[in-house]
Amino acid sequence: KADSVSAATPTEEMNGAGNLMDFLDEPFPDVSTYEDFHTIDWLREKSRDTDRHRKITSKSKESLWELIKSLLDAWSGWVVMLLIGLLSGTLAGVIDLAVDWMTDLKEGVCLSAFWYSHEQCCWTSNETTFDDRDKCPQWQKWAELMTGHAEGAGAYVLNYFLYILWALLFSFLAVSLVRVFAPYACGSGIPEIKTILSGFIIRGYLGKWTLLIKTVTLVLAVSSGLSLGKEGPLVHVACCCGNLFCSLFSKYSKNEGKRREVLSAAAAAGVSVAFGAPIGGVLFSLEEVSYYFPLKTLWRSFFAALVAAFTLRSINPFGNSRLVLFYVEYHTPWYMAELVPFILLGVFGGLWGTLFIRANIAWCRRRKTTQLGKYPVLEVIAVTGITALLAYPNPYTRRSTSELISELFNDCGALESSQLCDYVNNPNMSRPVDDIPDRPAGPGVYNALWQLTLALIFKIVITIFTFGMKIPSGLFIPSMMAYHHHDWIIFKNWCRPGADCVTPGLYAMVGAAACLGGVTRMTVSLVVIMFELTGGLEYIVPLMAAAVTSKWVADAFGKEGIYESHILLNGYPYLDVRDEFTHRTLATDVMRPRRNDPPLAVLTQDSTTVEDVETLIKDTDYNGFPVVVSRESERLIGFVQRRDLTLAIKNARQKQDGVVSSSVVYFTEDAPQLPASNPQPLKLRRILNLSPFTVTDHTPMETVVDIFRKLGLRQCLVTRSGRLLGIITKKDVLRHMAQMMNQDPESIMFN
Amino acid sequence: KADSVSAATPTEEMNGAGNLMDFLDEPFPDVSTYEDFHTIDWLREKSRDTDRHRKITSKSKESLWELIKSLLDAWSGWVVMLLIGLLSGTLAGVIDLAVDWMTDLKEGVCLSAFWYSHEQCCWTSNETTFDDRDKCPQWQKWAELMTGHAEGAGAYVLNYFLYILWALLFSFLAVSLVRVFAPYACGSGIPEIKTILSGFIIRGYLGKWTLLIKTVTLVLAVSSGLSLGKEGPLVHVACCCGNLFCSLFSKYSKNEGKRREVLSAAAAAGVSVAFGAPIGGVLFSLEEVSYYFPLKTLWRSFFAALVAAFTLRSINPFGNSRLVLFYVEYHTPWYMAELVPFILLGVFGGLWGTLFIRANIAWCRRRKTTQLGKYPVLEVIAVTGITALLAYPNPYTRRSTSELISELFNDCGALESSQLCDYVNNPNMSRPVDDIPDRPAGPGVYNALWQLTLALIFKIVITIFTFGMKIPSGLFIPSMMAYHHHDWIIFKNWCRPGADCVTPGLYAMVGAAACLGGVTRMTVSLVVIMFELTGGLEYIVPLMAAAVTSKWVADAFGKEGIYESHILLNGYPYLDVRDEFTHRTLATDVMRPRRNDPPLAVLTQDSTTVEDVETLIKDTDYNGFPVVVSRESERLIGFVQRRDLTLAIKNARQKQDGVVSSSVVYFTEDAPQLPASNPQPLKLRRILNLSPFTVTDHTPMETVVDIFRKLGLRQCLVTRSGRLLGIITKKDVLRHMAQMMNQDPESIMFN
Repeated sequence: KADSVSAATPTEEMNGAGNLMDFLDEPFPDVSTYEDFHTIDWLREKSRDTDRHRKITSKSKESLWELIKSLLDAWSGWVVMLLIGLLSGTLAGVIDLAVDWMTDLKEGVCLSAFWYSHEQCCWTSNETTFDDRDKCPQWQKWAELMTGHAEGAGAYVLNYFLYILWALLFSFLAVSLVRVFAPYACGSGIPEIKTILSGFIIRGYLGKWTLLIKTVTLVLAVSSGLSLGKEGPLVHVACCCGNLFCSLFSKYSKNEGKRREVLSAAAAAGVSVAFGAPIGGVLFSLEEVSYYFPLKTLWRSFFAALVAAFTLRSINPFGNSRLVLFYVEYHTPWYMAELVPFILLGVFGGLWGTLFIRANIAWCRRRKTTQLGKYPVLEVIAVTGITALLAYPNPYTRRSTSELISELFNDCGALESSQLCDYVNNPNMSRPVDDIPDRPAGPGVYNALWQLTLALIFKIVITIFTFGMKIPSGLFIPSMMAYHHHDWIIFKNWCRPGADCVTPGLYAMVGAAACLGGVTRMTVSLVVIMFELTGGLEYIVPLMAAAVTSKWVADAFGKEGIYESHILLNGYPYLDVRDEFTHRTLATDVMRPRRNDPPLAVLTQDSTTVEDVETLIKDTDYNGFPVVVSRESERLIGFVQRRDLTLAIKNARQKQDGVVSSSVVYFTEDAPQLPASNPQPLKLRRILNLSPFTVTDHTPMETVVDIFRKLGLRQCLVTRSGRLLGIITKKDVLRHMAQMMNQDPESIMFN
Repeated sequence: KADSVSAATPTEEMNGAGNLMDFLDEPFPDVSTYEDFHTIDWLREKSRDTDRHRKITSKSKESLWELIKSLLDAWSGWVVMLLIGLLSGTLAGVIDLAVDWMTDLKEGVCLSAFWYSHEQCCWTSNETTFDDRDKCPQWQKWAELMTGHAEGAGAYVLNYFLYILWALLFSFLAVSLVRVFAPYACGSGIPEIKTILSGFIIRGYLGKWTLLIKTVTLVLAVSSGLSLGKEGPLVHVACCCGNLFCSLFSKYSKNEGKRREVLSAAAAAGVSVAFGAPIGGVLFSLEEVSYYFPLKTLWRSFFAALVAAFTLRSINPFGNSRLVLFYVEYHTPWYMAELVPFILLGVFGGLWGTLFIRANIAWCRRRKTTQLGKYPVLEVIAVTGITALLAYPNPYTRRSTSELISELFNDCGALESSQLCDYVNNPNMSRPVDDIPDRPAGPGVYNALWQLTLALIFKIVITIFTFGMKIPSGLFIPSMMAYHHHDWIIFKNWCRPGADCVTPGLYAMVGAAACLGGVTRMTVSLVVIMFELTGGLEYIVPLMAAAVTSKWVADAFGKEGIYESHILLNGYPYLDVRDEFTHRTLATDVMRPRRNDPPLAVLTQDSTTVEDVETLIKDTDYNGFPVVVSRESERLIGFVQRRDLTLAIKNARQKQDGVVSSSVVYFTEDAPQLPASNPQPLKLRRILNLSPFTVTDHTPMETVVDIFRKLGLRQCLVTRSGRLLGIITKKDVLRHMAQMMNQDPESIMFN
């Protein structure tokens, strides 16, 4: 039969594939395996890695040196994890110290050593009790330093003015650095990292420059007082570290699939240092950012997260040998009845999450589509100015957000100088500290509550405008800020007769968890992070109750969290594992060509000329072409990548005699013997993928979506009883899903 | 063309499928969807659930009642989780209390109330300090009760004798109950649960009877003093609860895929109550037992695990409002230099793990293949007798294992009566308790060490014979037992000068983690479980070091953990996600028919008679048959399940006039109009799966294995350029993998 393909023994085929590897690996430095903004093929990456592994294993039996090399290769994964842990822990420590110092620099300077932060400055001045903390002689506010007057309206205005000036300077520096050196260093980075981990290529997003600039500008942005946190960007920084160390080992640098395993672990390390929660970090990576997370990665992520946490701890940026500023330990139990306010907090968190996502996305869309987006520097300057202007008068917004959270989470001690703890003291001071709620609240408490409410509203509004600006910005901490403190007053009345009473800090923490849950839709990882912050199983039920409620409430208004919304907004080709596809469409409805389209661009196994192929490559931008027996029978024999085809033809034209435009391209096992007068055939079977993925036209789309997700395919061919009918790419799947959800399919932009 | 299949619109097809569902759902009660000891098709289960969901969603718009029903359906998952948590927590509490009482019953009885355990008995007798704990008048040993003499050789012998008698009675009861009522209630159950979760059907393994008998016999077996733990069986018990509650909701009871989601969560709840570690439980389920673990299940598992843990805590079986008997809190830090012994413990753990697995598997194989296996009752009695005989003289083996672990894990307090804490007291008793290591060890300590060493050897040997016997048996606790206490002496010398010293309990815990890691090859979940037991991040590094070392050492000798080894031993069709397939074989090497086999059993779309089909069904035991256009062209159009075929023919012969043996079966869209004299055709397109999974013959087996794993396939058809060549089933894949690893492929027994 003319259209049959003779059988090849496996070894022969495989050797062909082996040669292909050598020949295509780096033939022309300008053609990389995947193009920028394209999707990788997970199955192909995996089988490339298996090939590499097989080669090393078989070589390792040859000599001792090869054996050592194979052992080093096996251990390189752990070495990379160790390095990631060390570097991201160190960077987190440096960032923490720098933010501390620069935040205080907005208010004043340490005379004994200008590189000391307020707290460090007053530590050295040996005379500090808790009350005197704010008044140590070495630390001078700017007004005091410049005019000699520490008090009075003039000094206040001067301090206010300088505070704004510093803030503007920091944010201007930040936005300029980002614009000039590393445009990818802006934003939280988590939506992009999610997309990259799902198999998308964004060159330079995790590069060295991005790492450097993101670290510096993150410090500047947080210090400028903008309503943003360092947690999301820390994940980006850690992933940059991961990418950096990948380049040390060809195992990871040359395989996009293996590289993503390292990046998943790096994300875990990033969350680990951001919250001091290694287990939470691993679960965050598993639940929120990672796509393909084999068990081996779980174990390694945990290792990286632990190393990072302990590196940070040995740097000890907060001087309390804890991993985070707001580590807390509560000792009072909670009561069943308190579940009601916790659930209410959950509802509030869910509503806030929905509101925040909608408002933020609307604002970002406006920024993208209108004139506004053209002046990012101006926008940052304006928002910083407004933030600083409004923040200074309120002591709760003047300070850095993490300091504020730390104060709110903590219980009041008897020695606490905070306004929130300004209860009327009983003369009987021998009573234990836990009894504070028995005392009536002093004027300071009401004052503080009023200020906190204002702070809450201010933060809610300003964060909507801040997230998405062209500087590094994270969401975690601002979200945590939006807690709900009013319950407190209600409960004060309720529990005054009792001896034990509610823990205000616990409410702040539950509120924070609820808001964070509403915004990001994290679940287990959120509870575990909070659990690691408090260090006790006691409060896991309140946290769980709030997190569950918050997610339910928020999900009722829209399934996407903030990161998914930003992915959608940017049109990244992200196939969410959580979306359930429930429509009744079939592969035939999604495949191209559509009804009135021109026929599918295919190659035949033995009747296409080099010129035809070149024309096809020039005229289309497809990533690959199916190869069929003949145009009449349309029986599929394989799939050939555009890149391999381009390279092979380029190569053949340069090196192989007799290959001209009219040469026939053969994908069959053996090319026929042609008379010498005919142009030499070009044999390309070795670049033909003989196992393309196929589904039948009757396959339900839910199965197709499942296959794309689980196997990480780039494209899939559609057949009916052996005949090729069409092709479905990941982009087609995403567009179809968008269409089914009544969204604009054109919003999916990349391949 | 004769062999073409005309296109059908999707809706039309789908309606056909809808009718099929109604018609095949429960047509004949004796034919269930899957047969016992067969593998399920995950993709099919998933698409059935989506169909169900679609039906409910579309109905919910019709009336308020349907809306409520759809809401109930959406919530049923959470309800099931809640019920599982409540029941498994309660059962764990009851088991703990009963084991406590029955273990003490072997030694004596409480006079004031015979249902009190030793500890409860002496609680009520208000006169207990720690020293007097063992001597309260209400509690009488058997000899004292029967003869009036509490001391002396006679009393000792009598107590010894009665101890053995009770033990024999308990274990005889246990083994008899298991044999008579629920043969599946024996063993740890984890290997089988892993297999079931991977998509295998073992009817009755998680049934009501198994639940009841397993709960009762677990108490008996643990109380009899056999070297087994209740942790593995608790997972089995929790899974039985899960299965029980599945039957309340058709969503879960009628869908084997959804049912497995619930079982995964139940396994998490089981570990949660066994160790008081909800997060560890979820990770255990994720890492060790589950196969298909979507994120939704993660969140629900966590919920079930928390509910279970808190139910257990409110039952409070240990009277300390902790979840486990051996909850500990250490306060001394550890030093970098201590990592060396921790790593040595890891090496020991790994070696012990390897040794244990090899010896236990060898013993179990001998039991399976020789006369030994025919006398399970005798075997249990003999092992119990030997255990009791050898255990009684040594105080460390006489008590229940969990009590012993609790003692070993804990630091010595000043008031501790344990021999291990028999340090020579300084006259200066005002020194803090932490300073104990400064004091020289008393004779009791050396005595205790000697006894502990004996206990260690005894436990190691006896556990090998115990695990795998025909009674409920768990491994966790016995593995934990095999810690290493000798370092202790070495370090006593090293640190005597220092003020702070090593924590012996920590060594016991790290050793336990190492041994457990070596035996089960758990990683993250092990560290997290241990972390939740100690409740502090402090000791996570030692635990991690030991766990990593132990796994590496053990993996060097063989990849399989104890559960995988038992799965292999029993020949279950379990496709481990962790095994990397690195061989260069292709689909064509694995598919059937092999070279000299008869051709593949196929049906043709329009030329097979009912009789042919019936003969084919009778002559073969395949689960399904591919349908091709014609025997000449061999172009695949679909796949038909054996069960559907049997049912459809049975149905047609009963209800449809004119269908006789010579009727032609049509799988095409339309059957031709035949003259009335011809037998009526039988149209079976509606039972034809038009989207069978295919790969080409050139697909590397690593890809095929990956597809089987990730999509949970049952079989896959092999084609070359549209022609059907053969079929690969899960069993073929497993046999091929066994062959490649130089194992006997015939050891894979089930389909």
